[in-house]
Amino acid sequence: MTAPEFSYSLLDVSGSARRGKITTAHGIVDTPAFMPVGTAATVKAMTPQAVRDTGAQIILGNTYHLMLRPGAETIAELGGLHKFMNWRRPILTDSGGFQIWSLNELREIDAEGVTFRSHLDGSRHRLTPERAVDIQDMLGADIVMVLDECTDHPATRDQAEESLRMTLDWARRCREAFPNRPGHGLFGIVQGGMYEDLREEAARALTGIGFHGYAIGGLSVGEDRATMLTMLEAAIAPLPGDQPRYLMGVGRPADILQAVARGVDMFDCVLPTRSGRTGKAFTHRGEINLRNARHAQDPRPLDDRCQCPACRDYSRAYLHHLIRCGEILGATLLTGHNLHFYQDMMTGIREAVAKDKFAGFSAAFMGEMEKGDIPEHP
Amino acid sequence: MTAPEFSYSLLDVSGSARRGKITTAHGIVDTPAFMPVGTAATVKAMTPQAVRDTGAQIILGNTYHLMLRPGAETIAELGGLHKFMNWRRPILTDSGGFQIWSLNELREIDAEGVTFRSHLDGSRHRLTPERAVDIQDMLGADIVMVLDECTDHPATRDQAEESLRMTLDWARRCREAFPNRPGHGLFGIVQGGMYEDLREEAARALTGIGFHGYAIGGLSVGEDRATMLTMLEAAIAPLPGDQPRYLMGVGRPADILQAVARGVDMFDCVLPTRSGRTGKAFTHRGEINLRNARHAQDPRPLDDRCQCPACRDYSRAYLHHLIRCGEILGATLLTGHNLHFYQDMMTGIREAVAKDKFAGFSAAFMGEMEKGDIPEHP
Repeated sequence: MTAPEFSYSLLDVSGSARRGKITTAHGIVDTPAFMPVGTAATVKAMTPQAVRDTGAQIILGNTYHLMLRPGAETIAELGGLHKFMNWRRPILTDSGGFQIWSLNELREIDAEGVTFRSHLDGSRHRLTPERAVDIQDMLGADIVMVLDECTDHPATRDQAEESLRMTLDWARRCREAFPNRPGHGLFGIVQGGMYEDLREEAARALTGIGFHGYAIGGLSVGEDRATMLTMLEAAIAPLPGDQPRYLMGVGRPADILQAVARGVDMFDCVLPTRSGRTGKAFTHRGEINLRNARHAQDPRPLDDRCQCPACRDYSRAYLHHLIRCGEILGATLLTGHNLHFYQDMMTGIREAVAKDKFAGFSAAFMGEMEKGDIPEHP
Repeated sequence: MTAPEFSYSLLDVSGSARRGKITTAHGIVDTPAFMPVGTAATVKAMTPQAVRDTGAQIILGNTYHLMLRPGAETIAELGGLHKFMNWRRPILTDSGGFQIWSLNELREIDAEGVTFRSHLDGSRHRLTPERAVDIQDMLGADIVMVLDECTDHPATRDQAEESLRMTLDWARRCREAFPNRPGHGLFGIVQGGMYEDLREEAARALTGIGFHGYAIGGLSVGEDRATMLTMLEAAIAPLPGDQPRYLMGVGRPADILQAVARGVDMFDCVLPTRSGRTGKAFTHRGEINLRNARHAQDPRPLDDRCQCPACRDYSRAYLHHLIRCGEILGATLLTGHNLHFYQDMMTGIREAVAKDKFAGFSAAFMGEMEKGDIPEHP
């Protein structure tokens, strides 16, 4: 059986919001799509079956973590990341760059690449554009990301410009190193700090090199939301309409709705999984903390519009109990709920775009969330 | 719909080993049975569906933990323990006595009951035989245990005798307090320390009071295996043949086989669940530690005779990776495997008794386990 060519089809638009379909070696991804984060070859607290049951069609793996433990060669030897972790649908891997920037104090960057010490055992490692592509290829990622430098925030214009030069040079080298395999795609990453013209320049330069899709990186790093949206608009404007756009590391439901409104197709974020492990839940009535005593006697479901196991089979009182006791099942149920909530939102977005009613959907969704939680149980 | 009467049917014997069936308000339990421990209204790291998928027909809940958090009244208000934790099959609850003895330094015992401080917040609580039955009734347990004193080990004969007097007095009071509800049973507990004649006396006295079943408590508390088996034999001999016998808190696979050989029908133990959370697995080739580096590159399943998700969908290398990373999924998969292993063993035991071949089954099972793990992957 030959894998299909990697491709994106634009199906519908509603304003600038898009509905589409990405075809990969491991299947279809309907967009706009949210990718749960599976850092260490597992979406934390979830079985792959449970992740699938939330509706997720694609997950993200972290190259930095996997190259350090258990190692890309080990995973390749064992048949690749899909088989290793028993996730048979598409996987996107990041390049490792962002984690080197955020987890390593002692990194040394040169024009060729970056040298860093493992946060696990202090051992020295080196990542170059070619090595980043090679590792992701060994993992078997359906979507491979170029190695980029995540520009510091704040950065002067000179710093942002210099950082962007290197990122674009590395992007070219990744493009050359990428082994074209049917169903596998390479995405470029638009950097440029908080400078609109640099963002535009980056997007144009990457389009010139030519990738299977384009990510926007270096946002949601501490800037205000208006700045983020301005940068996003600047980055998206020059990008080709017939290829997918991915906003990296974003975000809250409101961020996703606003980015979809500007033409973004793909998202990833640790928020639904990390929040789930600490007792926080996203609902149609906003974010709530199950640890709060107001839920201790509450027989009602977490979110009465949700069909996930946590909402279908348990009371808020039970979820509160699990969180208070530090029980693993609490993390499992709330992570599952949060991922379910995100996937339901993405389904709603896609349906609204198909009917050309995205703006109304988005406003109604946010209006409901801003009401806050249902009144306390008497 | 009226619940059936609580009953035990003896179906087959093989030597002293028995195969039978317990009927309760929430369904049938095939014996010999192993009950996973669900201390705080959850079998740790498992969904109820996953527990069911291991083949478990009954679980154990801990009255001590539940009375302190979230409280028996809260659970009753929310519809009982079955609904609270979404486990619709039978539940046995202990009386709380054992945990008061093992977790509380500051307990005060008098003839009426025991006063203790919560290990969670230091608050004062009191448990009497009547209150222990009342709490378990509020939880909705299918099988309720009498409040007993777990005799210290070692204990002088005088100490063991005095302790037994109180345990028998409390057993009578529990019997009187027990509200006969269809499908719900009350079990007495044979104590008597490490004195054969006291064990026999206890079993006779309890039979005289009359219970739905009989447990043997205060074993596996530090004595050697020969002593445990001697006490077990002394306790079982006077018990009626047409009622179930439950060996509390036991144990390893070898302990279970030896106890079944002496006529025990029910077991509970934290071993498969606790071991699973720390990377230890029971296999047909003995106990193995997945944290060990020998598994790091091993593409083979944990146990090639096992059909559980951990063995069906993953390599030893992946399980090793999860444990080394401290990932929740490692605890979930290994707990599931260990419970699956225990339930498979119980199924094997029941089939062997049905064919009157228990001794051969037991010898073959132990012989295989004693071989130790398969040779290291080359």
